[in-house]
This record gives sequence, structure tokens and C-alpha cells, in this order.
Amino acid sequence: MPGEFDFIQWIRTQQKPSELAPLPAGDDLAILKWPEKDLLLVGVDQVLDGVHFDSTVHSPRQIGRKAINRNLSDCAAMGCLPAAAVVTIASPAGTGMDYLKELYLGIKEAGDKFNCEIVGGDTASWPGKLAVTVTILGRSAGIKPITRSGASPLEAIYVTGPLGGSILGRHLTFEPRIDLARQLAKNFRITAMIDLSDGISRDLAHICRESDVGAHVWAKQLPVHQDAIETRRDGRSALDHALHDGEDYELLFTSPDKIPPTIAAAIGMTFRGSGVILRASDGSESPLAPHGWEHTL
Amino acid sequence: MPGEFDFIQWIRTQQKPSELAPLPAGDDLAILKWPEKDLLLVGVDQVLDGVHFDSTVHSPRQIGRKAINRNLSDCAAMGCLPAAAVVTIASPAGTGMDYLKELYLGIKEAGDKFNCEIVGGDTASWPGKLAVTVTILGRSAGIKPITRSGASPLEAIYVTGPLGGSILGRHLTFEPRIDLARQLAKNFRITAMIDLSDGISRDLAHICRESDVGAHVWAKQLPVHQDAIETRRDGRSALDHALHDGEDYELLFTSPDKIPPTIAAAIGMTFRGSGVILRASDGSESPLAPHGWEHTL
Repeated sequence: MPGEFDFIQWIRTQQKPSELAPLPAGDDLAILKWPEKDLLLVGVDQVLDGVHFDSTVHSPRQIGRKAINRNLSDCAAMGCLPAAAVVTIASPAGTGMDYLKELYLGIKEAGDKFNCEIVGGDTASWPGKLAVTVTILGRSAGIKPITRSGASPLEAIYVTGPLGGSILGRHLTFEPRIDLARQLAKNFRITAMIDLSDGISRDLAHICRESDVGAHVWAKQLPVHQDAIETRRDGRSALDHALHDGEDYELLFTSPDKIPPTIAAAIGMTFRGSGVILRASDGSESPLAPHGWEHTL
Repeated sequence: MPGEFDFIQWIRTQQKPSELAPLPAGDDLAILKWPEKDLLLVGVDQVLDGVHFDSTVHSPRQIGRKAINRNLSDCAAMGCLPAAAVVTIASPAGTGMDYLKELYLGIKEAGDKFNCEIVGGDTASWPGKLAVTVTILGRSAGIKPITRSGASPLEAIYVTGPLGGSILGRHLTFEPRIDLARQLAKNFRITAMIDLSDGISRDLAHICRESDVGAHVWAKQLPVHQDAIETRRDGRSALDHALHDGEDYELLFTSPDKIPPTIAAAIGMTFRGSGVILRASDGSESPLAPHGWEHTL
């Protein structure tokens, strides 16, 4: 029966030394030569069976891809370049090498697109469900990290793509907006940014709280995804899906600059104050309560 | 019902800005100013309910402490100083804030002992069992990282403490040998090192394979822990426990230097060749097969 060590040996055949990680894997920790002058950005996200994916429906490649892409999307949100990742897999006993290899390749292929190397990890079998955790290391690489706290009143609020209904498939197939984030940061003043993982109602509230501003969202201007129109069969409007569904992984940001609509849609404006206010198509205004995804404990 | 966000807000009250992480938490990624000239060492380990702990027996503080101490022990193995950690918790639905706070405090207190800051994380509830993942960032801080691959033939093999029977409690209460590792590296030529997580039979085989040497282990010289004598009631000898039990978290290393027995016990010698050979008390020799802990997949 193949064990953890066989899997590690196989992973080593997938890796090659690089400028960042000159030594091959095989130690307790990976050794990286961090580029001087670059800030190091670090974060971690997990995907869990029954919450972020369904192992009875989704393939291990899809699961692996989603696990790292959530983290790569965090890099986009900060305007940094991903550099390296470490991965843990907790797998149900009897999962088998072939499944784990597929999972790993899903992670690796998605990382490769952004030159993000998998430099270490830990695999264990257990009497539990599949859980995959990816820790990402990003580097500032010439761009000051963009936080959630830099927005000022009377800035425009933008979003980089249509929203809603990601459950139909985009929550698995989205592409992290890293290149777009870097282009935005190079060409415009981006004062605060976040990636839309929990729904705009919740994620915009994060920016408002951290930046100490309020925000108007104009329903008419909100780009609504075709998937949000499809999912309206559940009785909620397409707008409701666009506002509250999570896992769009588009960028939501503020800027004092006028940004061409071909790049991002202006969906509102910050104001001096607090809270998020939705202006409906009929011109009426009301507080936008966060209905997006939050784990209860 | 308290949610993920309440927990994050509470965690933020536990953190304070530092030289390494000058900005408070609150973004997708933590921003670190990595010390120039320091190599960055990174690794990840998970502890899983039913494998590394038993949530029906062990307290959340004990579980949190073990989760990070396994990683801190990896820092010891490489001779580096821990600097920062990020944490994920996958918790069964309904776990509650109090339990998660205890878990977090277990992690934080153990990290604080070594000035290792918790700079980020991700908490999610799920229909699964408790899993805690800690990613550790270490810095070389004046000592060239010690790998598993530097041993040469005819070097002494040392261990920093008595082995076996950790299941009686030491697997939860061990102290990572970081200070000792740094002292050893400063005062002696340490050519290869590993922390004893999987049992000496397995971990010494790792050093042999990576260094392309063989190793003799002298049964007479092996420091056997009182716990190994206790656990021999299961029918296995105390020596067997000392050789094969995992989770001692003592350091196993090779050196061409004579190291005082008050610091570490000499338990064998490397040779030109391969494999691990045990010399029994009666002088007979036989291959030492790895019986220590390995996850089957």
C-alpha cells in the first residue's frame, strides 16, 4: 500500500530548483532566498468537502485548482505577485495515490500559470473528510501592497466583472485577476481593494469598515452575470444574486481616478460616514445588509 | 450566533504591530518586512482529530499548542528562528467561540515563547472533524540552515534526549528544541539534522537517504525514556518503543565533532554505504526496518 513517503517522492519528481528555492525539497522546511527589497505577503485559505466543494461531484483536479486559486485571488486583491505556496492535504483513509496526484496537479498547474512554486507540504490520511489548505507567499515586486483601508470619501467604486450565480460553476473555474490587478495599480491610483469571495454586500462592508467610509452602490450600474439570471429561478432576483452571492473572485476597488468601462465598471461612490447603501433602479435608497457567505461557529 | 467575523475581530485584539508585521491584520494577506540577508524557511504541518490528537480527551489549548509546536520543532531541525505563522482551523459546526479562542490561545502562547507571531489565518466551520494547520516562516538569522543531506561517512550520530513512549503525554507537552539547535549549530559542526517526529528508525533513514550514507545505531547507547519502559506493557520492549515510536521531537543529528554527553548522547556512527543497521546489546547486527509512523494513503 503506497504511503506518505511514496507520494512525497513523486512530488519531488515534479519540482525543479529555481532562483527562489535553489535546494530541492526533502527537508523539514523549504529554504527560500527572498528577493531583497520585496515585501513578503502571506496568507492561507482552506477548501473543505461539503463547504467549498463536493467530492462526490467535483474532480480532484478541480478541487486542487480551486484551493490554490482562492489564494492567488488574495494576491490579486493586494496587487502582489505570487511566489511560492505550501500545501496540506487531509485525506480520508483509502483515498489512494492516483487521486492525490490529480489533486496535486490541479494545484500545480494553476500555480504554474503565475510562476507560483509549490515548495512544501504535508499529507496525512485520517478518519475525516477531504480538506486542502494552501498557504501563499507573495512579493510586492514594485507595487506597494493595496490594503482594504486606503479608501477616502468621494472616490469611485469599481468592479472588474459581472457578478452572481457563481455556484453554477464559476466558483471552480474562475481565473485569479493578478495581471489585471497589477495593471490597475501601475496605471491608476487604487486606494483600497478586495477580491469578491463573500459577496459584494459583505466585502464592500469590509472596505468601508477598514477605510472608515460609507459606500453607495447603484443597482443600475451593477454588472449582473448571466449565471445570476439563471439562478433567479430560486425566487431571488438576479440583482440579489449579484449583490450577495459569494465566490465571484472579481476585484472590488476604490479609486479617485476615472477608469475606462472596458477595464472596470463604476458601481458606486464612497462618502463620509459609514455603512453600505443601495440605490435601487427607482432611485430609492436603503441600507445593504451583508447577506453574503459567513461561517457561523 | 457568533460568526467567523466576530472571531477575526477578537483575534485582532490579540495582535499588535511589530517590526516584522508593521500593519495590523485585516487584509487578504499579511504584509511582512522580511529581514534583508535572512533566508526564509517555510513549512506546514497539520494536526487532525483522531490522528494527532483526540478531541474527546485533549483540551483545545493542548491541541493548539501541539499544532504550532510541531512546526516550531521543524524550525529547530533546520537551526532557524521562527518568525511568523499563519493558521487555519476547520471546526465542526457548532464548535463555538470559546473553544476556538482556547485553541487560538494555545497556538499563540506556544508561539510567543519563541517570538513567533501569528500574522494571519482562516477559520471555517464544516460538517467534518477538527483540523488545525499551521504554516511557519523561519529565518536563518546568522546560521546556515541545516539540512538532512550534509552527513558524511564516519561521523557520530547524536540524539538530544531519551526516546519512546511519547503517547503517554509527551506528544502534547514537548518543548521544541530551538535554543538547543542554535547552540549546537554555533558551537559544533552539525552536518545533518532532523527532529524525531516519526521515530528514529524512520527519521534516521531519511538522513541516510538524503546524505547518501549508512548508519549504525548502538542499542546500548540509546537513551530510553521512562515512558518507553511504561509502555512496554503492550508486549514490545522498551528498546523497540525507543526506536520506533514517533513524536519524541528530540533532535537527531550527525557531527564529526565530539559533543559532551551532557548535551547529546552519541548513539551511533555513519558509514559509507546505505541503510540503518542496529547493533544489539549482544553485539549482533541486523537491518533496522522503519516501523515508525507513516500515513498510508
